Amino acid sequence: MDRLRYGVAYYDEYMPYDRLEQDIQMMKEAGINVVRIAESTWSTMEPQNGVFDFRSVDRVLTAMHKAGIQVIVGTPTYAVPTWMVKLHPDILAVTPQGPGKYGTRQNMDITHPAYLYYAERMIRKLIAHVKDHPAVIGFQTDNETKHYRTVGPNVQLQFLKYMRDRYVTLEAVNRIFGLDYWSNRINAWEDFPSMEGTINASLGAEFAKFTRKLVSDFLSWQVSIVNEFKRQDQFVTHNFDFDWRGHSYGMQPEVDHFDASIPFEIAGVDIYHPSQDELTGIEISFGGDIARSLKMNNYFVLETQAQAFPHWTPYPGQLRQQAFSHLASGANMVSYWHWHSIHNSAETYWKGLLSHDFQPNPVYMEAKSIGRDFARLSPKLTNLKKLNQVALLLSNESLTALEWFPLPGGQIKYNDIVRLIYDELYKLNIECDVLPPSVSQEKLAAYKLILVPALYCAPDELLHRLNAFVHAGGNVLYTFKSGFSDENVKVRTSQQPGIIQAACGIGYSMFVEPTNVKLKDDPFEVGEEGNRVEVWMELIQPTTAKVLAYYDHPHWGKYAAVTQNNYGFGKATYMGCLLKPAAVSRLLEILLQETSLLRDDMKQERFPIIVKSGVNTSGNRILYFFNYSSDYMTMTYMHTPGKELQSERTVETGEQLELDPWGVSIIEV
Amino acid sequence: MDRLRYGVAYYDEYMPYDRLEQDIQMMKEAGINVVRIAESTWSTMEPQNGVFDFRSVDRVLTAMHKAGIQVIVGTPTYAVPTWMVKLHPDILAVTPQGPGKYGTRQNMDITHPAYLYYAERMIRKLIAHVKDHPAVIGFQTDNETKHYRTVGPNVQLQFLKYMRDRYVTLEAVNRIFGLDYWSNRINAWEDFPSMEGTINASLGAEFAKFTRKLVSDFLSWQVSIVNEFKRQDQFVTHNFDFDWRGHSYGMQPEVDHFDASIPFEIAGVDIYHPSQDELTGIEISFGGDIARSLKMNNYFVLETQAQAFPHWTPYPGQLRQQAFSHLASGANMVSYWHWHSIHNSAETYWKGLLSHDFQPNPVYMEAKSIGRDFARLSPKLTNLKKLNQVALLLSNESLTALEWFPLPGGQIKYNDIVRLIYDELYKLNIECDVLPPSVSQEKLAAYKLILVPALYCAPDELLHRLNAFVHAGGNVLYTFKSGFSDENVKVRTSQQPGIIQAACGIGYSMFVEPTNVKLKDDPFEVGEEGNRVEVWMELIQPTTAKVLAYYDHPHWGKYAAVTQNNYGFGKATYMGCLLKPAAVSRLLEILLQETSLLRDDMKQERFPIIVKSGVNTSGNRILYFFNYSSDYMTMTYMHTPGKELQSERTVETGEQLELDPWGVSIIEV
Amino acid sequence: MDRLRYGVAYYDEYMPYDRLEQDIQMMKEAGINVVRIAESTWSTMEPQNGVFDFRSVDRVLTAMHKAGIQVIVGTPTYAVPTWMVKLHPDILAVTPQGPGKYGTRQNMDITHPAYLYYAERMIRKLIAHVKDHPAVIGFQTDNETKHYRTVGPNVQLQFLKYMRDRYVTLEAVNRIFGLDYWSNRINAWEDFPSMEGTINASLGAEFAKFTRKLVSDFLSWQVSIVNEFKRQDQFVTHNFDFDWRGHSYGMQPEVDHFDASIPFEIAGVDIYHPSQDELTGIEISFGGDIARSLKMNNYFVLETQAQAFPHWTPYPGQLRQQAFSHLASGANMVSYWHWHSIHNSAETYWKGLLSHDFQPNPVYMEAKSIGRDFARLSPKLTNLKKLNQVALLLSNESLTALEWFPLPGGQIKYNDIVRLIYDELYKLNIECDVLPPSVSQEKLAAYKLILVPALYCAPDELLHRLNAFVHAGGNVLYTFKSGFSDENVKVRTSQQPGIIQAACGIGYSMFVEPTNVKLKDDPFEVGEEGNRVEVWMELIQPTTAKVLAYYDHPHWGKYAAVTQNNYGFGKATYMGCLLKPAAVSRLLEILLQETSLLRDDMKQERFPIIVKSGVNTSGNRILYFFNYSSDYMTMTYMHTPGKELQSERTVETGEQLELDPWGVSIIEV
Repeated sequence: MDRLRYGVAYYDEYMPYDRLEQDIQMMKEAGINVVRIAESTWSTMEPQNGVFDFRSVDRVLTAMHKAGIQVIVGTPTYAVPTWMVKLHPDILAVTPQGPGKYGTRQNMDITHPAYLYYAERMIRKLIAHVKDHPAVIGFQTDNETKHYRTVGPNVQLQFLKYMRDRYVTLEAVNRIFGLDYWSNRINAWEDFPSMEGTINASLGAEFAKFTRKLVSDFLSWQVSIVNEFKRQDQFVTHNFDFDWRGHSYGMQPEVDHFDASIPFEIAGVDIYHPSQDELTGIEISFGGDIARSLKMNNYFVLETQAQAFPHWTPYPGQLRQQAFSHLASGANMVSYWHWHSIHNSAETYWKGLLSHDFQPNPVYMEAKSIGRDFARLSPKLTNLKKLNQVALLLSNESLTALEWFPLPGGQIKYNDIVRLIYDELYKLNIECDVLPPSVSQEKLAAYKLILVPALYCAPDELLHRLNAFVHAGGNVLYTFKSGFSDENVKVRTSQQPGIIQAACGIGYSMFVEPTNVKLKDDPFEVGEEGNRVEVWMELIQPTTAKVLAYYDHPHWGKYAAVTQNNYGFGKATYMGCLLKPAAVSRLLEILLQETSLLRDDMKQERFPIIVKSGVNTSGNRILYFFNYSSDYMTMTYMHTPGKELQSERTVETGEQLELDPWGVSIIEV
Repeated sequence: MDRLRYGVAYYDEYMPYDRLEQDIQMMKEAGINVVRIAESTWSTMEPQNGVFDFRSVDRVLTAMHKAGIQVIVGTPTYAVPTWMVKLHPDILAVTPQGPGKYGTRQNMDITHPAYLYYAERMIRKLIAHVKDHPAVIGFQTDNETKHYRTVGPNVQLQFLKYMRDRYVTLEAVNRIFGLDYWSNRINAWEDFPSMEGTINASLGAEFAKFTRKLVSDFLSWQVSIVNEFKRQDQFVTHNFDFDWRGHSYGMQPEVDHFDASIPFEIAGVDIYHPSQDELTGIEISFGGDIARSLKMNNYFVLETQAQAFPHWTPYPGQLRQQAFSHLASGANMVSYWHWHSIHNSAETYWKGLLSHDFQPNPVYMEAKSIGRDFARLSPKLTNLKKLNQVALLLSNESLTALEWFPLPGGQIKYNDIVRLIYDELYKLNIECDVLPPSVSQEKLAAYKLILVPALYCAPDELLHRLNAFVHAGGNVLYTFKSGFSDENVKVRTSQQPGIIQAACGIGYSMFVEPTNVKLKDDPFEVGEEGNRVEVWMELIQPTTAKVLAYYDHPHWGKYAAVTQNNYGFGKATYMGCLLKPAAVSRLLEILLQETSLLRDDMKQERFPIIVKSGVNTSGNRILYFFNYSSDYMTMTYMHTPGKELQSERTVETGEQLELDPWGVSIIEV
Repeated sequence: MDRLRYGVAYYDEYMPYDRLEQDIQMMKEAGINVVRIAESTWSTMEPQNGVFDFRSVDRVLTAMHKAGIQVIVGTPTYAVPTWMVKLHPDILAVTPQGPGKYGTRQNMDITHPAYLYYAERMIRKLIAHVKDHPAVIGFQTDNETKHYRTVGPNVQLQFLKYMRDRYVTLEAVNRIFGLDYWSNRINAWEDFPSMEGTINASLGAEFAKFTRKLVSDFLSWQVSIVNEFKRQDQFVTHNFDFDWRGHSYGMQPEVDHFDASIPFEIAGVDIYHPSQDELTGIEISFGGDIARSLKMNNYFVLETQAQAFPHWTPYPGQLRQQAFSHLASGANMVSYWHWHSIHNSAETYWKGLLSHDFQPNPVYMEAKSIGRDFARLSPKLTNLKKLNQVALLLSNESLTALEWFPLPGGQIKYNDIVRLIYDELYKLNIECDVLPPSVSQEKLAAYKLILVPALYCAPDELLHRLNAFVHAGGNVLYTFKSGFSDENVKVRTSQQPGIIQAACGIGYSMFVEPTNVKLKDDPFEVGEEGNRVEVWMELIQPTTAKVLAYYDHPHWGKYAAVTQNNYGFGKATYMGCLLKPAAVSRLLEILLQETSLLRDDMKQERFPIIVKSGVNTSGNRILYFFNYSSDYMTMTYMHTPGKELQSERTVETGEQLELDPWGVSIIEV
């Protein structure tokens, strides 16, 4: 990537009146240098079956090009026109809620041949039409693709074939998936039941894996079509999204991001996060760490919020801070969804950079300052590289398994356990990469410390790799539930935690739900509230491990809660229960100090001050200092002297660094 | 109307044994002079297709007439017999929940020709059969008619035709309803999708308007049939109901009451309200104000509670207070649902005047005293006329729009904003009328002050009329969200609040959800709790307006919360956020004092003392004083001397007026 | 029954590897002398239509027999194989949620002829195959059978025929079920509507009765088939379960246990209960009292928990205490569900005696001590007989009726009112039997005190029997709502509480929902909190009754809350409102003291100390003392001297008896 991109999604089709020239003028003033178009306007581009009309695209391409704004063109396939659904009602995915209804986007069966036929024709026509336009720098295939919980009979039949391809015999299927239970045994392929009603978690999890594969296959197929047409200098990306819990956070349950991102040149994501008093930068950082890890390279933030919702409208300074937060995680593009606020239909209150009145407003005014600095600092800030020593191992399979077997209370899900670990790490200002379960022994070896939240479902090989990593001198932190079941969500028949017993030096065969349980003698010195144990506890007996914390309870007091074990040249720490964030933070601090990842001179660098860094194309280190609070903050700058890039002021080691509320300092050293 | 009616719904069909003579004897003793019959007994009157049996009706008519009790006969069309549904299962409305199931009432598709065929035959047979009976004073068509969320394919097809009639071209439809969004554009009429799945609020709101029209059409059709038969001296009415939130309050979302009431001689309503410690009279007053405003005339309370539910069973005195509360709002009839408590099926615990044992009980005993006074005071209290100077502008379209775009949290709906304004006005003892959006400039001119809660969705003309009203010397209070979108739920492209900017002298382009926000310096002097701002706040910048209140917040403190603007000869006040009731009350007090509607000598007249008044047929003013509390209340009577009609005692100006717990005084001056 | 059985459910089919010999060895060590097999493995035993394979059964029978462990064989009919559903999809019950989906157990229509055909063939094949095996001591038909809310068209047609058989004419049906209401009248049999949508509680309750009958018929049919084959010395039992509210408690709404248990030699039940700090023994005692009352004989606990869920894993001592608690209620068998924890599918976290690792664990170790004592004490503890003087009258019909007409708030259901009475009785250490509404006058006469919670729905005869019972010298405690409706859920037309007015000496025609109501002057001396009246109160006027408590309320203070009336030689107490447990406990104490059932020397015997007793086959009294707490408890032993059977120590009257936390003493006197 040659320079920083500052962008918006632009929908000329949705405009209440012709504003193209005015909008482009305002974009130019704001430093917008890229727009994303066309990704949800199929009914405009193909108003009737086989009738194509690219006038709206052409006019935008021409105008943008004239203004020097580049364009990413999206395939419009994630929202189907009504004529198609009228003609083929079964294009809409049958979900557990029944047949789909026309209206919303992302409601089709992405395996349906009729849909694929029309999609392919549309993609070919569109890409062929625009590929030679000089404004077009790349393509986005579809948008936020997922499987939309398609479970109709055709999908069931594909699953049967997938199972037969994979396991060959029903004997194997019955054994591996434990189908004898409740008379679920299948004794002939034609008796294979729909997964809609299955109560077998192993089979259900396999179906989830299969539907994630449908997404990878679909995207890969789209890319292959685009690739037939695109110019050498054009890229293909996709806008991946994360688990949605009112905002973007955590693994996307419906997509295997590592697998699905393979065909793309560059990873793109959307990140929507809490704002105002709840802006912490965590979601920006987490989404960025995944995005960067997908291709181990810089990435695009294809969508993020400008004004968005009434509860997200940024305070003064926040839009700017957010933009640089993305860069600090390795983004090369920050693009808003969207330019203007849409006047009706569904997303009227998901506001863009402009309000419905198209007038300059405080948020737009702030964007102008960002655009100016992006342009000016582009040579310094583009293609920031990181070399992290900590990694987080995330597993779609474990997420799915914990949906089938939720923790007591049903509130704490896989992504909450991830969050518990990630958020505390973030607040300690330790950056990390994200690894998939398929990570090789070699790749593991690049890290000093691997954090493994609730790796419930894992093949033997992965656990052996992790053991070997420790043995060779690595450090691992496991939480409860790790190693519990094999890759088919079958609980291991050995004592728990199974294969990682070797590295962890512990064993357990019982687990309970804590009531009024805490850690004995507050070992992490976090006080009454922080010392509580909740939701889940394993009754751990150390074999060779040292006990870091015991439970405090009349009946379970003899069991260990947190242990640490030397194994070969490394060390494995096991957290056998759900701790409170304060205790997790202390545990992480201990581990990070033991591994020399957290130095004494970093003590002032704690949330709400956040430090991120990387090396730029000139080989210089860029240090970002963020203040995620409404207060003025002061800290002693303990790094090599450097220059603050916004003010162009020199900063000396030991100097007091002042950070405005929701402010950022960018120092090149 | 020649005299006050005191009535009950009577179902001879539901009686466990023949009690007609006994019941009539007890009715006579209670002063009951009218009964309502037949409205839900189709299966009795037409036991099989085309077989009619009016014996149950005849026997009641005869017996009532003999006893001098008059009868309103209802068409039984709101509950269909099982033979009809067995024959034509698709008579049951398909709703968003799927095909209907037989059992409950109000489950049919009111547009289905088979249903209409049977309904018409039934109405003709019944009305022809009873019209000449001297007991019959009038008819009620159907009961609490609504559209029952009918969304089946036939209704969708009718909607398509309605759209084509109204907008002629799809080009217009696509533009007006913003269908380009998410590929919803419709490029051929045969592609018109079902509204079941629509995510387009504008189109969804149009469909809601269309289904409200179905109700008006249905009722108008029934009236036209009844009118073919009825005698000159007989009336036709309907029992309209309100939004149901555990009791009757607010605009009915499924019916346009102003439109649907046009064909009726007299408006009828049912009002069910909280009781015991929660009896305030507000629901009685609100329902009455709408009912009276529909025909700008006196109205019938066709149903209200006697004992009803365990949590509503009235305290001693409350039944009497309730009855006179209805009269005080302009009712000419108070009729209970129902005479006796039903022994089984669905409404067993919705008790009537009599309990299941048919014995005189405390509530029945109280009814006797009411019946006596109704008879005695009828010449004084019938046809009470009002001339209000305040009106509330209510909009079905805004209610629907705010269902599509709910306020943050989803708790505060349109009717809650209405309630916030109405309830505080009521407690200040200011009576008001209710106006529909179609109100003419002339009608507006009759008022001093118009209250406009959340007029989210409004055509330009209405807003211009309101501007003109202010300019000519009127006063308007708008709340937040007013003027925001046009009549098609499209947000205006001008700065907000759009057209009413002129009168309000303000502008805004941003709005946020308040957290920890209050009004600066407690401008309404309502203390910590009362001064809070919740759920919604607009960041208002005055142009010519005076600021009545600023926000108190570190980042939004420069914006105005409440403003007031002189415009022409009048004044427009704008409340840009959700205030607490105490603050609204103070704001209203200020406006009412400014407009001389609230005089100093009314200061003692505050809730729980409620004062209502009107002019009777002798041209005398009737003043009702209610005490909505369990305490004895005393107040100084500041009005013209008069006579208390219950005690026949004279009351002098300045005299101390004593009100019993849940008591009423009625003074003719 | 010749001796105590200590058992487990065993599923060789679910084992991840061949462990039969190892498992049996571990069972022997734990004293397991019976296993339950085959009840959910149809797909293993009949892998394809008509292809039978009993190898898994044979191998277990042979191995168990060799080890001296006896076997109960279950018919596998409660979980259908996939081949059957593929062939006949309509075998799955249509429920109010729509057509069933394959996967879970207990999802079939138990009236479907295809299902019955396959089930019969399976039962015949299986029983014929195993009946002569010496290990087989008995059979279990199906498992936890219920009607699974089957409501499809075929079930509706059966209901029509049932109604015609029962009521002969529609005239009767219309009258008895009050169908005129809301035009529900049926005037031809072919118009009989589906009950799916009925709003008529009387008809809905009749349909519930009909579906309970389907369960009885189905079980009776299965027994008749097994009986054709079984040896004389073999028994047939069923595993009945209770209302499930996170654990077993209360009447089973879907089954008439008294009716359904008729064909069985011995009653079997499953009882799952809270554990850890929430173990009280109440659910064990309640389930045991019903089970014992079904055949007025000893019973089997065919399933209960070993480790079960994380929140149930027993504290040390609890598994032992639970086992003897079952015996103390009259069980002759305690059998765990299940031997090993299942490694996948649905019930992975419902753990067995062994964890997933099959290793001896603390719970298994405790089972070994139980097995040892069961074997040793079997001659003393088998066939314990009880002669209770208190009985609880429970009514499925009332439970159903209160589902149709829930108490205000919807939280307190029939089984909660049962629980309120039963739990307090239990804590006072008074044992009781359970009686069905069909109880005869003679059987009633065996008791001193009958407790009647919310007998809402009852035929005249039952109420007359209860009156006669009181008249002859008996004591009855009724709660509110008793006597209210007839057997068809039609409210009685007499003053309430109808027929029992005679015995109770009270009347009422009004009832309200209490807000801020307590009992006047705290008559039960239970303090502020205990004295509150909630959810429901009847405004009772005594005729001949003495008032035990008045309401304290400004408007309802003149009405009685609790009354007592002498009638003939007995006494009827009426509790007209929902009291708090403390008040109920005091009321029960008063009644028990009046009837000499609670003696002064029992004062120390209060929960958490629980005393149960019975007479063993030697004619000696066995006294069980339980400590349901984590504290050491001491009490004075006031009974006849005896011998503690575990320690073989003699216990003298007046001696201090020490009870360990979660401990038990068993004394033979």
